Amino acid sequence: MSEYQNDRLLRALHRKPVDRVPVWMMRQAGRYLPEYRAVRRRADFMTMLSTPELAAQVTLQPVDRLGVDAAIVFSDILVVPRAMGMELRIDSGQGPRLLEPIRAPEELRRLRSVIIERDLGYVLEAVRQATVALARRVPLIGFAGAPWTLMAYMVEGEGSKSFAVARRFLHAYPEAARQLLDRLAAVVGEFLLAQAEAGAAVVQVFESWAGLLGPEDYRRWALPALERVLEILRGRVPVIVFAKDGGHVLEPLAELQPHGLSLDWTIDPTGARERLGHRVVLQGNLDPAVLYADPAYIQERTWRMVRAFGVQGYIANLGHGILPDTPPEHAQAFVEAVHGFPVSEFAPVSP
Amino acid sequence: MSEYQNDRLLRALHRKPVDRVPVWMMRQAGRYLPEYRAVRRRADFMTMLSTPELAAQVTLQPVDRLGVDAAIVFSDILVVPRAMGMELRIDSGQGPRLLEPIRAPEELRRLRSVIIERDLGYVLEAVRQATVALARRVPLIGFAGAPWTLMAYMVEGEGSKSFAVARRFLHAYPEAARQLLDRLAAVVGEFLLAQAEAGAAVVQVFESWAGLLGPEDYRRWALPALERVLEILRGRVPVIVFAKDGGHVLEPLAELQPHGLSLDWTIDPTGARERLGHRVVLQGNLDPAVLYADPAYIQERTWRMVRAFGVQGYIANLGHGILPDTPPEHAQAFVEAVHGFPVSEFAPVSP
Repeated sequence: MSEYQNDRLLRALHRKPVDRVPVWMMRQAGRYLPEYRAVRRRADFMTMLSTPELAAQVTLQPVDRLGVDAAIVFSDILVVPRAMGMELRIDSGQGPRLLEPIRAPEELRRLRSVIIERDLGYVLEAVRQATVALARRVPLIGFAGAPWTLMAYMVEGEGSKSFAVARRFLHAYPEAARQLLDRLAAVVGEFLLAQAEAGAAVVQVFESWAGLLGPEDYRRWALPALERVLEILRGRVPVIVFAKDGGHVLEPLAELQPHGLSLDWTIDPTGARERLGHRVVLQGNLDPAVLYADPAYIQERTWRMVRAFGVQGYIANLGHGILPDTPPEHAQAFVEAVHGFPVSEFAPVSP
Repeated sequence: MSEYQNDRLLRALHRKPVDRVPVWMMRQAGRYLPEYRAVRRRADFMTMLSTPELAAQVTLQPVDRLGVDAAIVFSDILVVPRAMGMELRIDSGQGPRLLEPIRAPEELRRLRSVIIERDLGYVLEAVRQATVALARRVPLIGFAGAPWTLMAYMVEGEGSKSFAVARRFLHAYPEAARQLLDRLAAVVGEFLLAQAEAGAAVVQVFESWAGLLGPEDYRRWALPALERVLEILRGRVPVIVFAKDGGHVLEPLAELQPHGLSLDWTIDPTGARERLGHRVVLQGNLDPAVLYADPAYIQERTWRMVRAFGVQGYIANLGHGILPDTPPEHAQAFVEAVHGFPVSEFAPVSP
């Protein structure tokens, strides 16, 4: 771990004492940064995504500007369905869409086998270039969508409030759903492993749609597939699982023993520690909307959060991606509030 | 209570023994019913909403077809912002929209004072006509949106995944937000009282966007306004609060002492009883997507749910509105499964 100039993130993931609480932000390489928008003006989102030089460039921007303790490679969770042969469209002003979604079991045949280096090489190359450019200042985080979350998009075709089509698929075609989840688990696991080999020191799995399934269905469908991903990665690279709207499945997720569990802002930090103890490192979870308030209030809320999570086995983050119209000074205030938290006054907790 | 031929809903809300578990479905007067679509072909949604004869007609359809234990007046939560002067558009294929949303404190001046009978008389008339047409077969439920949920729509203007504009408003303009929530609480409380006076035996408050706020912000913003609504109704009419994505705030909601708390499908029934005991009647919460599965599976899941909630102080329902493409026979299977549950084998629980 000492190979990084700043190894707070890795120390936290191994529950070692830290001089400052590590902090990064989901979607930190994003539209709220003027230097990101400058790149974006010259290239559309798909071009940025598929051009390793551009992806690596924006990956480093928040490290340079904000002094966050980790970089996360600029990419999108839908690169995996794209690698499986689905056409991905990301038009500005709209959310991403997958054309010709999978609506019936026989349509699974349309999905092709993925060869990671061939079909996702552009992401691996972005990881490699970002790793070189970072020059071991901070660790790089690789990522992918969790199988259920990817399946939800692949069946629905685009973001939706209810994802009724995807939920219907589960109940109408349970066997095909299981097959699809299995295939996704294998691809996601291999893809994350390849990102680790390309230079990512940590990987994060985004279960963005945990809230679509009740506890019973989450355990039945989503959890076994996620478990398979974690098995592929076990002993190879530390893994953080982010469960958006997953307050009802925190215990089963912790039982999978990821290194870290990243929480959205609806989870009370004290309550999370009561439920999960120190079995798992926790990450999160300031409401990104709090960054709309003034810096004094941001500091107050941030300190209260850090105090509740505790300074050991904890990584500060937002509870979801930073919102595109966040003032960069407010993002800075958040990072500084975390780094300014008086760690030494808080005795380490034994696991 | 004996004034209704079927008073199971009211008995359950007063935690009295029932011969069968009462059941109704959110959005039960809706597009999944051919007889609803027949009406809808002759009139657009806004016309149905504002024509008491049509609203009353579709209100009765699920009672006639499915034998549910309650009717709920056909309406929309956005009638309240409309009464405050905002223009409501409901185009088919799109969600509802409020034109010219409230984006800054000074825009609150655009909202007019509501005189319930003048501005919401068409809903009250639908309640009256449905009450007459029901002829005391089953109780009628009136409803309204909770203040925070209405504010979220009024600021955002339409449904959104993140409601970032509405969340920004809270943090950027806390005083104006408080004023708006106070005004909404007063209107919603009076409106529900008027629905009770017009014939509704029970009212339900829809907090559809509980999940947008973390526990601290929910307590700070949404809860006091909801409490004010309940205070207006206390002793006048039984109230059920439905909290969508509100798993993190069930305890504070129960502390407001509504008669019933309606849960979405992410809440484990056994867990909910452990957290809340029998202090509050629980309603819910089958995943509406389970109605896409075959009737045998629907019955299995329904019975498991009823068993976990317990047969006393419980109202069976879905965890959200019935989905528009649900086969009516599957809705029927759900209602029959609830009514077929062997209540007598389950001894009543003392509160």
